[in-house]
Formats: sequence, structure tokens, C-alpha cells
Amino acid sequence: MSRAAVLGAGAWGTAVAKILADAGSDVTIWARRETVAAAIREYGVNESALPGVKLPERITATSDLAAAVEGAGIVFLAVPSQTLRGNLADWAGHLPSGATLVSLMKGIELGTTKRMSEVIVETAGVEPGRVVVVSGPNLAPEIAAEQPAATVVAGTDPARTQLVQQALALPYIRPYTSDDVIGCEMGGAVKNVIALAYGMATAMGMGDNTKASLITRGLAETARLGVALGADPMTFAGLAGLGDLVATCSSPLSRNRTFGEHLGRGESLEAAQASTKQTAEGVKSCLAIRDLARAHGVEMPITEQVERVCHEGVDPRVAVKLLMGREMKPE
Amino acid sequence: MSRAAVLGAGAWGTAVAKILADAGSDVTIWARRETVAAAIREYGVNESALPGVKLPERITATSDLAAAVEGAGIVFLAVPSQTLRGNLADWAGHLPSGATLVSLMKGIELGTTKRMSEVIVETAGVEPGRVVVVSGPNLAPEIAAEQPAATVVAGTDPARTQLVQQALALPYIRPYTSDDVIGCEMGGAVKNVIALAYGMATAMGMGDNTKASLITRGLAETARLGVALGADPMTFAGLAGLGDLVATCSSPLSRNRTFGEHLGRGESLEAAQASTKQTAEGVKSCLAIRDLARAHGVEMPITEQVERVCHEGVDPRVAVKLLMGREMKPE
Repeated sequence: MSRAAVLGAGAWGTAVAKILADAGSDVTIWARRETVAAAIREYGVNESALPGVKLPERITATSDLAAAVEGAGIVFLAVPSQTLRGNLADWAGHLPSGATLVSLMKGIELGTTKRMSEVIVETAGVEPGRVVVVSGPNLAPEIAAEQPAATVVAGTDPARTQLVQQALALPYIRPYTSDDVIGCEMGGAVKNVIALAYGMATAMGMGDNTKASLITRGLAETARLGVALGADPMTFAGLAGLGDLVATCSSPLSRNRTFGEHLGRGESLEAAQASTKQTAEGVKSCLAIRDLARAHGVEMPITEQVERVCHEGVDPRVAVKLLMGREMKPE
Repeated sequence: MSRAAVLGAGAWGTAVAKILADAGSDVTIWARRETVAAAIREYGVNESALPGVKLPERITATSDLAAAVEGAGIVFLAVPSQTLRGNLADWAGHLPSGATLVSLMKGIELGTTKRMSEVIVETAGVEPGRVVVVSGPNLAPEIAAEQPAATVVAGTDPARTQLVQQALALPYIRPYTSDDVIGCEMGGAVKNVIALAYGMATAMGMGDNTKASLITRGLAETARLGVALGADPMTFAGLAGLGDLVATCSSPLSRNRTFGEHLGRGESLEAAQASTKQTAEGVKSCLAIRDLARAHGVEMPITEQVERVCHEGVDPRVAVKLLMGREMKPE
């Protein structure tokens, strides 16, 4: 019987724990708060993360990190992106030697502009091949409801990549392997920023032609940055690029799109944070992504405008007009 | 003052006539029915095509083909795809010598499996460079409402391509040029078939993860066929590929998506035709596209299943299950 640990009890971490258990692993979720761990352990529910979902018997939970990871062959990391470095500094000594470490996070670290897998390699002191990334069109509530979905499992060590693929394979989720870690991570991170712009455009009453152009141009700028960082351009045409972007922009379940809608209705960043009781990942990542783009000389007009709206007080209507006013040219 | 003719008074033909007039051309629409021509001419409305839209003064209309095209430097063709060959056989003698011929149609001819630009070259007896194609995320009612949009103008003669670009350029529509006629036409034709599948999945209650995967896999099979026919793979990542596909799948205004929803609710082809009072373009094109794919040895699983549902009485639920049940593999 294989054992897996999921560190972080948010919606996506909990949904992945359900997949792993449904596919036959014994799973321990680590939750920061003991009350959350106790509810999962005793009642099989994580009400704030996945309301109404009954978790499988094979899932248990604890707030004791050492107990959570003991004996785990695969450790999934599902904490907020900007807390990963601090958490891993505390945890590194406890991670089972040889375990495969999987990033479920979609962000870029502020300040260092590092991808999550880079932060793991650096902070846990492991070889890059030990780190695997999972990314794709995977809205957690739909996965938890067992709606059919597909995802991408990316890693540079084929055996570890296939191990994670097998651990996640089920009739309701189909994992595809890839060796393009950079492309998968950049697709996942930048899509949050484009979804903010999509939410703004939605709130401003833009039509489907305009919003489809935004998705197209958004994927193009994601691919430009990804390729500059060493990604395979074809990754962006796949599930971890186009697929994730379309799912996030289409779904009212998406936090980044919803946050963008608040901004598009004219709310300040603070008001949107108060309305949604959170800060969407793209609000932070847009700063790091803009910095990465500038450092590599890559033009990212949508990201630039989202950053201005979020952090420089620019009116979203002005930002969208600037985006539509670019010069005519061959595509 | 430049003169342009638009042959066909459907929604898209009429919307393009409005763009041309707004951008400064004098435009004559040819309508098959004199009552439609008279309403456009006398009242500036085409109520069945674009309800509620007041057409600009620079637009007139006639049911006399020779009068419509007289003196036109650009002739836009906007008739139903499967009627193009028959119409052009009647019209070829009247087309002004030297005029640029523009295809606004998104279909593949049944039987011959030819693209619309190929039918024009063959039937009008002109050089391929005289034919230009316009394709992109362009739902006609949104364009008519002057919602910001972008489109692609593709041709092999740069001067004629730029002429059409200039004729269509406005603050609310941004035309980009391309030399990939094949890619733009295949993107436009296959997206109708994928939108039928998307409509079926929508009616069956599939979630946004599933539908995003369908768009991703649909674009991949479109690109495979396009590349086999000589298209540039990058065209499919642009407005005439991804952009048009996303707009058509997202919008309740899309005929193909709506038709697919009827099929997904269990209606027969005949019942869906009766409900929608029309046959969606993808229903016909899926036969020609499947034939093209088989002739070129290209795998198009979504198109195959749509063809089976439309023409072989296969239950959409069975078709979607078959699509989701494909084997795990590297992406």
C-alpha cells in the first residue's frame, strides 16, 4: 500500500488528497490548524475548503508535520505560494529521504522571481529530478465532484513523473506526463494574471469576441515569457497552458477571475480583498511576472496593465483602452 | 471614395458591410430576396439578420448582382458555404476585373472537401493572390454593437491583403494581416465542429475543467489537420484559431454551440433543425473535415464523434464517454 502526504488543507490540496485516496493510496493531510485536521480525521469533511464533499476513508489528517510525512513516498506541497519558502525551512529536516516532492502551487515568489519548483530545490536541498509539478484545467470543486478532467504531470526524472501519474490516474481524472517543468509552472502562474484581466473585462460588459481576444493575446504573452525562460512553446497550446487558462477564465468558481470582476466594478484593491475575504494569487504574482518579463526583455502588455490596476491605482477602464489601442500589424 | 460590395445579407455579411461603411467605403449589399434589399435600402435595417441595428447611410442594397458589384474594388462573399459554387457559376461573368475577392465564409465544401478560397479560385477563374480570407473571433451581433474585437485578414498577395486590412480598420475592430490562408480557413471551419461538441457537453452538465480540455484537444486536432494541409502551426495559437474557437464555444450567440446543446439534450438532428430553424454549418462541414482527415491520415477524435452523433444516430453521451476514455500518454 503506497502512502502519500498532502501538506496544506486548502481546496486544491484537499481535492488532490481525494484523488490519491480514490486511486488507492493512504493519504495524510497536514493542516496548519488542528481544528481543520480534527474535522477531516473525525468526520471526513473539510467544510471551508470543499463544502459538502465527503472525503474517502483512506484520508486522515494531522497538524503534526513529522507525523504527516512519515513513510510517505510522495509528498504534495499545497501551501500558499508566498509561504512556501518559510514552511520548507521548518520542514526540510522531516521530509523522508528519497520521497518525490510534488508542487501543486501556481505562483512566482515575490522578490526572487523564482518558480515554486526552484524554491523547493533550493530550500529542501534536493536534486531537481526529485521535484514534480502538477498543473492543468483543474478547478477543485469540479474535481471533488468527480467531473471528468485531465491534468499534466511534469518532471525531469521519468520514473518519478510516471509514479505521480499513476498515483493520480482515475476514471474521472486523466494525467498526462511532460518533461517541461518550466512551461507547466509558467502556464499555471501567468494564467492567474490573465484571469484578473478577464474578470475586469467581464465586469465592464465586454463581449465574447473581446474576451476571446484577451485569452488569445494572454496565452501569447505567457508563451513569450515561458520560451524566454526555456520552456517548450507547445506546452502553452496544451492542458497546462490553454486548458488551464480557459478553465480559469470561464469559471465563476475561479478566485482570480472573481477578484478581477470586483476590480472591474471600480472597487479598490482593499475593497476587493474585503469583499472576497482573500487576495487572489495573480495579484501578488503579477509583480514577480512583470519583473521577470522586464529582466528578459519580453513584452507582456496585459500583465503590465493588470499590475498597474492592482498596485498603481490605474482605472481598469483606462487599462483596457490602452490594451485595445495597440497598433495594427501582422499577427 | 472606395466602393465595396458584400454578396449575401446574413448576419456576418451585414456586419462587415457596417464595418466597411463606418471605415469610409460606399457599400452595396446584394440580397437574394428583394424584400430584404428594399428594407436595407429604404429603412437602413436588416431585421432578420441584425435585429435592432441601424445601418450607416453609406450602405445601400439591391437584389441585382450586376448592379451590386459595379465599380467595386473589393467584393466580399458571404453566402452559405455549400451554395458558393452554384452562386459563383452565375456571378463569375459580372465580377469587376481586378477586384479583390474576400471570403467571409467558414466551411468546407461537401464532396470536393475544398476550402472556400479554393472554390473561389476554381469557379471564378482567378489567381490565388486575388482571394483574401477574413477570420477571427467575430460574433456578428457583438461587432454590430461596436464591442471591441480583432480579426485576421489572410492572403498571399501582400498589397491586396493590406487593402482589405485598411478597409476594415476602425477603433472597434483591429484587423491583423497573415499570409496563412490555409490555417485561417481551417481554424474557422473546424471550430464549428468543436463548438457542436462543446454545446453537447454543456447540455450534459459537464464542468469547466472538462469543457476547457475539450477546447484544448479540439484546437490540437484542428492544428494537426491544418499542418497536414500546409498551414503554419502558429496560426492556430492566434485569433483565427484559438480566438475564434473560444469565442464560438463561449457565446450563447453561437449557432453551432446552440445546435450542439439541442443534440446534447437528446434531440435528433431533425428535431434540432426544427427547434433552431436552421442547420448549423458544423453539421455539414464535419463530414468533409472527417473525410479530409482520413485522406491525410490525421487523427481527429472529436470530429469523428461529432460526425457519428450528427449523421449516424450515436447517442452524445456514448460519444463523450468514448472521448474521455482515451489512453494515458505523454501529451
